[in-house]
Amino acid sequence: MTFPRDRFEADVNAVIDDVIGWRRAMHEFPELSFHEHETSQRVYETLRSFGGLEVTRPTPTSVMARLIGTKPGKTLAIRADMDALPIQEATQLPFASKRPGVMHACGHDGHTAMLLGAAKILCKYRQELSGEIRFLFQHAEELPPGGAEEMVAAGVMDGVDMVIGIHLESQREVGRVYICPGPVNAAPDTFKGKIIGKGGHAAYPHTTVDSVVVAAHTIVALQQVVSRQTDPLQPLVVSVCQLSGGSAYNVIPNVVEFGGTVRSYDPALRAQVPARMEQIIRGVTEAFGASYEFSYHMGYRPVINDDELTSRVRAILEATFGVDSVETYTPSMAGEDFSAYQQHAPGTFFIVGAGGPSHAPHHHPAFTIDERALGIGVRAFVNVAVGLLMA
Amino acid sequence: MTFPRDRFEADVNAVIDDVIGWRRAMHEFPELSFHEHETSQRVYETLRSFGGLEVTRPTPTSVMARLIGTKPGKTLAIRADMDALPIQEATQLPFASKRPGVMHACGHDGHTAMLLGAAKILCKYRQELSGEIRFLFQHAEELPPGGAEEMVAAGVMDGVDMVIGIHLESQREVGRVYICPGPVNAAPDTFKGKIIGKGGHAAYPHTTVDSVVVAAHTIVALQQVVSRQTDPLQPLVVSVCQLSGGSAYNVIPNVVEFGGTVRSYDPALRAQVPARMEQIIRGVTEAFGASYEFSYHMGYRPVINDDELTSRVRAILEATFGVDSVETYTPSMAGEDFSAYQQHAPGTFFIVGAGGPSHAPHHHPAFTIDERALGIGVRAFVNVAVGLLMA
Amino acid sequence: MTFPRDRFEADVNAVIDDVIGWRRAMHEFPELSFHEHETSQRVYETLRSFGGLEVTRPTPTSVMARLIGTKPGKTLAIRADMDALPIQEATQLPFASKRPGVMHACGHDGHTAMLLGAAKILCKYRQELSGEIRFLFQHAEELPPGGAEEMVAAGVMDGVDMVIGIHLESQREVGRVYICPGPVNAAPDTFKGKIIGKGGHAAYPHTTVDSVVVAAHTIVALQQVVSRQTDPLQPLVVSVCQLSGGSAYNVIPNVVEFGGTVRSYDPALRAQVPARMEQIIRGVTEAFGASYEFSYHMGYRPVINDDELTSRVRAILEATFGVDSVETYTPSMAGEDFSAYQQHAPGTFFIVGAGGPSHAPHHHPAFTIDERALGIGVRAFVNVAVGLLMA
Amino acid sequence: MTFPRDRFEADVNAVIDDVIGWRRAMHEFPELSFHEHETSQRVYETLRSFGGLEVTRPTPTSVMARLIGTKPGKTLAIRADMDALPIQEATQLPFASKRPGVMHACGHDGHTAMLLGAAKILCKYRQELSGEIRFLFQHAEELPPGGAEEMVAAGVMDGVDMVIGIHLESQREVGRVYICPGPVNAAPDTFKGKIIGKGGHAAYPHTTVDSVVVAAHTIVALQQVVSRQTDPLQPLVVSVCQLSGGSAYNVIPNVVEFGGTVRSYDPALRAQVPARMEQIIRGVTEAFGASYEFSYHMGYRPVINDDELTSRVRAILEATFGVDSVETYTPSMAGEDFSAYQQHAPGTFFIVGAGGPSHAPHHHPAFTIDERALGIGVRAFVNVAVGLLMA
Repeated sequence: MTFPRDRFEADVNAVIDDVIGWRRAMHEFPELSFHEHETSQRVYETLRSFGGLEVTRPTPTSVMARLIGTKPGKTLAIRADMDALPIQEATQLPFASKRPGVMHACGHDGHTAMLLGAAKILCKYRQELSGEIRFLFQHAEELPPGGAEEMVAAGVMDGVDMVIGIHLESQREVGRVYICPGPVNAAPDTFKGKIIGKGGHAAYPHTTVDSVVVAAHTIVALQQVVSRQTDPLQPLVVSVCQLSGGSAYNVIPNVVEFGGTVRSYDPALRAQVPARMEQIIRGVTEAFGASYEFSYHMGYRPVINDDELTSRVRAILEATFGVDSVETYTPSMAGEDFSAYQQHAPGTFFIVGAGGPSHAPHHHPAFTIDERALGIGVRAFVNVAVGLLMA
Repeated sequence: MTFPRDRFEADVNAVIDDVIGWRRAMHEFPELSFHEHETSQRVYETLRSFGGLEVTRPTPTSVMARLIGTKPGKTLAIRADMDALPIQEATQLPFASKRPGVMHACGHDGHTAMLLGAAKILCKYRQELSGEIRFLFQHAEELPPGGAEEMVAAGVMDGVDMVIGIHLESQREVGRVYICPGPVNAAPDTFKGKIIGKGGHAAYPHTTVDSVVVAAHTIVALQQVVSRQTDPLQPLVVSVCQLSGGSAYNVIPNVVEFGGTVRSYDPALRAQVPARMEQIIRGVTEAFGASYEFSYHMGYRPVINDDELTSRVRAILEATFGVDSVETYTPSMAGEDFSAYQQHAPGTFFIVGAGGPSHAPHHHPAFTIDERALGIGVRAFVNVAVGLLMA
Repeated sequence: MTFPRDRFEADVNAVIDDVIGWRRAMHEFPELSFHEHETSQRVYETLRSFGGLEVTRPTPTSVMARLIGTKPGKTLAIRADMDALPIQEATQLPFASKRPGVMHACGHDGHTAMLLGAAKILCKYRQELSGEIRFLFQHAEELPPGGAEEMVAAGVMDGVDMVIGIHLESQREVGRVYICPGPVNAAPDTFKGKIIGKGGHAAYPHTTVDSVVVAAHTIVALQQVVSRQTDPLQPLVVSVCQLSGGSAYNVIPNVVEFGGTVRSYDPALRAQVPARMEQIIRGVTEAFGASYEFSYHMGYRPVINDDELTSRVRAILEATFGVDSVETYTPSMAGEDFSAYQQHAPGTFFIVGAGGPSHAPHHHPAFTIDERALGIGVRAFVNVAVGLLMA
Repeated sequence: MTFPRDRFEADVNAVIDDVIGWRRAMHEFPELSFHEHETSQRVYETLRSFGGLEVTRPTPTSVMARLIGTKPGKTLAIRADMDALPIQEATQLPFASKRPGVMHACGHDGHTAMLLGAAKILCKYRQELSGEIRFLFQHAEELPPGGAEEMVAAGVMDGVDMVIGIHLESQREVGRVYICPGPVNAAPDTFKGKIIGKGGHAAYPHTTVDSVVVAAHTIVALQQVVSRQTDPLQPLVVSVCQLSGGSAYNVIPNVVEFGGTVRSYDPALRAQVPARMEQIIRGVTEAFGASYEFSYHMGYRPVINDDELTSRVRAILEATFGVDSVETYTPSMAGEDFSAYQQHAPGTFFIVGAGGPSHAPHHHPAFTIDERALGIGVRAFVNVAVGLLMA
């Protein structure tokens, strides 16, 4: 397979203002997972405006668009996610979130805008297309059970031969593209629980079972799952991210609630974590005469990139951006429900640098992306799509 | 001084249904400290309905009623507090709180109803009264800086010679009355703070400073102020009652907020607590690369009952209820802004049993009082008032 | 009772060089509890050298000397303790301990020397003495079950009507004497335990149960007994003083051992502490899959000074040293097996200042006493003895 | 290269009783690192008894023996370590350690005996040998800076072309051999420190700075280096293995001492650990008004097996024991100063199974090896030596 180094450069230049505009509009009005009503409606309308696409709504807040070529061939699915996070934005961007406590702090606005741009370009080439390109605008990547599973259940992967996805990353250099075969994203499980003491007046601690101090002890004790109880050669993360209890300054609360996430690759390790955590919670609460509730939810499967497809996509990316601009990335503890699509077709999930080391990390209130990455993402989508279906 | 053993028994019997009704109505619609708008309005109207009282509004949510005798004499102030707590009621009472998250969980509804009942009875005896009885229906006992200070600033203690107050207690036997000279309530200070880490994606803890774990360590470490750093012979309580951080299961929050209360008697000990706490918070946050905010608010003064007045009131209570029904209570770590009145006149603060050991403690979601205590409280108020002003 | 203000001044001056010499010799060669062989032998020989005393050995390392008056009367016992502590002395005194790891860090050397001096003086007045003075040189005050109990069992209190004792205190002003009626010393219980994990190579923590981290968690968790679980109005101390585990830098040990002491006054509180501690130890060890051993030993009874005797002794001390030099001391959490004597006769235990605030505390490697206190102690012993038996 | 499947079987059978005898004698009288005086002397004498070896003492407690072939060729070094551990043996073996607190709990007795056995066999084949086999009986593998570095400095690797070593492993199946290219052992750093409080009487914790509780907090806090502060994809172990403070049940000690080990592969991660640890120790001690000492010692380099040599050795092992008996092992967090030899020649370090999952782990008081592994080790040494030098 050969084709001129990024023959779509002019097409990308023509669409880039639209892409930036779509991204900023989406950034300004973020919507939480499973609530992407306005977002998906705008995407739906935009896709219909391109002409030539068969646009449907697989679920209430997702969109699928099919570009069916004039010749038979393979079907490639390309996925972009659309949901935002429950974070209060702390940037000074002119298009910063207008919605208190909701923010596109993971770059999904960019993913969606890039895929819209790619779709607009590819529509122009429908006559030359063998097979089908299926654009999946997915809801709820951030919140288990995730939108991917729902879209798969709605049939979006039926007949699909290959699936790709891109993630923008704020702390990787803009101008660079990263790809990796094999396991690249961890299984992101979640948990929540309650430390149940006995509330009462704060002046009489001995008449209470102080759920606040017991909860603090429990969280400190949970550190040992990673630091002491599991194989240091097997990556594992246990993060308590939510903690709340008490509403009066002088009332010891009955209950402190907590929640968080566990990340792992190894199935055997993953299987033992819930019991380890519960043993610690049970022991520490019993130590102080408290009790507990604890539930653990298995999250997405790990993302495992298909070796052969990854190899082909890497070749296309190297042809598009130059060999020196494409790197192998190291696996990450983050989860991705892109894995749901990989149950139905070989897939590869790759990364477009969108900032650099000085940028805030993902899920941070000051998260931003360098918008030059958007054009790179569009180029990547278009070239890979054409490259894979031409092969 | 002699008078027939509880000559007001019939009066109390006549008013008791009103008292219970007032209390239940108040219980059903509790209002938080400084927001006692409806409550104070109802008290105001009820007092005006008795005739013979000079009823005013010293502050927006408090009420003062003056019963001015026909002969000159001393002025006695009697105080009842009216505010509720930010607790979700968990009783099955037919008159349980209708307001989510707000509850009369400290008996102030009873105090107010008892003092209304006493006022109604005493109005009947105005012709025989020497001096003045001043009924103080106070707002905001539960929330520093407290309503008492505000009422004193508004002049309610001008010209007052003596002040008394009652607290119902759910875990003391109904039928018993408790009184104690000297220091009986601790200084209730408050504090609040923030543990400031660096938020980020929960899958990459090493790119964050995990405010949740640092907060947990801090709370555990604060236990040492009481357990190790201060004289075991000096009573001290440090309670963290509020704790909150994080809103997404997979985002480590920037900040965890906490708050609570400190109780002490000894001024030297009290003075060193803020610095002890701050040193611990500073050290632990620095240990993990986090930072903090911390503020400490000196609360009410300790309640110190006047020896002579306490002695006189005890004699009246013994005459009213029988020597065997009156006990000396042990001092408590709870605070009381009744101390504000004691800066202006000798005062004594005593207790009416309103339950027994099986009752839930104060500030507990299942807190209840035995309503038989209400009649006892009315009798105590009326007899003590008459006793003190007849002397 | 009247007698000239300290008529024994000249006697004390005559004996003070001996007293200082005895004290320094004893300081230089300290002996641990129950091992006071050389010390008691020297005391025995010194007492015999005075003439007029009936000197015996109630137990292997204690000494009793009886000074029997020529007229009938009451019997007064005076007690001094003789044992040292397992502490490495860190003073630069010329007579600092010659025995590594053993130190008179609590002033018992002074007590013994003072009582020897008093005995020497009182021998001169035997002809005028009514009744008997019994000098008790006690072993093993520092180590439960204590020497007092053993001496009592050996009969030293048979026929005794009153008992007194002095403690030198390094952080109280020399020149002052302190006395207090009622409860003055706490019950000093002890505990020891093991955290039993599963040892192994430090590079594979997941194949071990790390007893070191579990022990650390346990000790931190035990702080809550005092800070959260017991009445802040009831003094309580829980101190872990010993901790040891592991002998190789790369071997996680099977076991960490710990030990310490609990101090309390209130019997009900005292009774609940062992179960509280064990519940915490059990819960925390179970949390991490470890196990434990724990034993709790009830120590000495609290010292409760007899009101009437204390009053009489105070009057004598005020007559001897001046009213302004005698103070009431506040009770202490330290234990004292002087309480064993008080089971058999009214007793009072008082304090002679032997330093000031800048001195190191008792049981500290840099502990010292101001030797001017020795003369004061001798004066106190002699005057109180004569005063009580003359009355 | 071909040679009959284990042509040395008869040789091994002839020497195995000696090997077992040497191993048991050595097990019974273990010597700590750098103190292998008797052990090395016995090895020295045994080697000299074989005839044909040039035996020297590179350092006071190590031994080198050179078997110089009759034809020129490569030089192969084979290393066995000889030191024991400061562990109290808790087996019931008839040849259990006679030295209290010292134990061969890592199998070095087996390594030494196996290499002696191999040397004895190989001596018989000196006439056929091209090149040289250099037997390195190393002291002090367990204690940094390690004996390997010293032996290298003494020149034992001069002129060496290849180096091999075996480790027996108690929890791997006897009958199996394990080999792995690339990085296989972590860098084993060590640390030690003191938590410096202010000692004093346990009844007055507020007059002390309690080093015991501060040490406990510190150890708990150090868990976060692994659980929160470092990349979950980079293996890291921080183990506190030693902890001690306090000698009296009622004296809070001035100081608690601690020590332990850190294991890592990644140089950048390794470099940041000391500062992370010290920041935590500094912060926690400052929180409580304590101070600290802390020192961190970089240990051995990681063991990195040469790819090509490993491949050749694997082929020989498969020829010797059968393909099914040879496995690839997973890297370990344990350290090995075998890495010192690898700085001077390509090397490979492989494993001989010596037990199974039910056996106690290394460095455990109940550690044992299945002696059938000794014959396998001898066969491995002899066959690999001949195989490599025949190639």
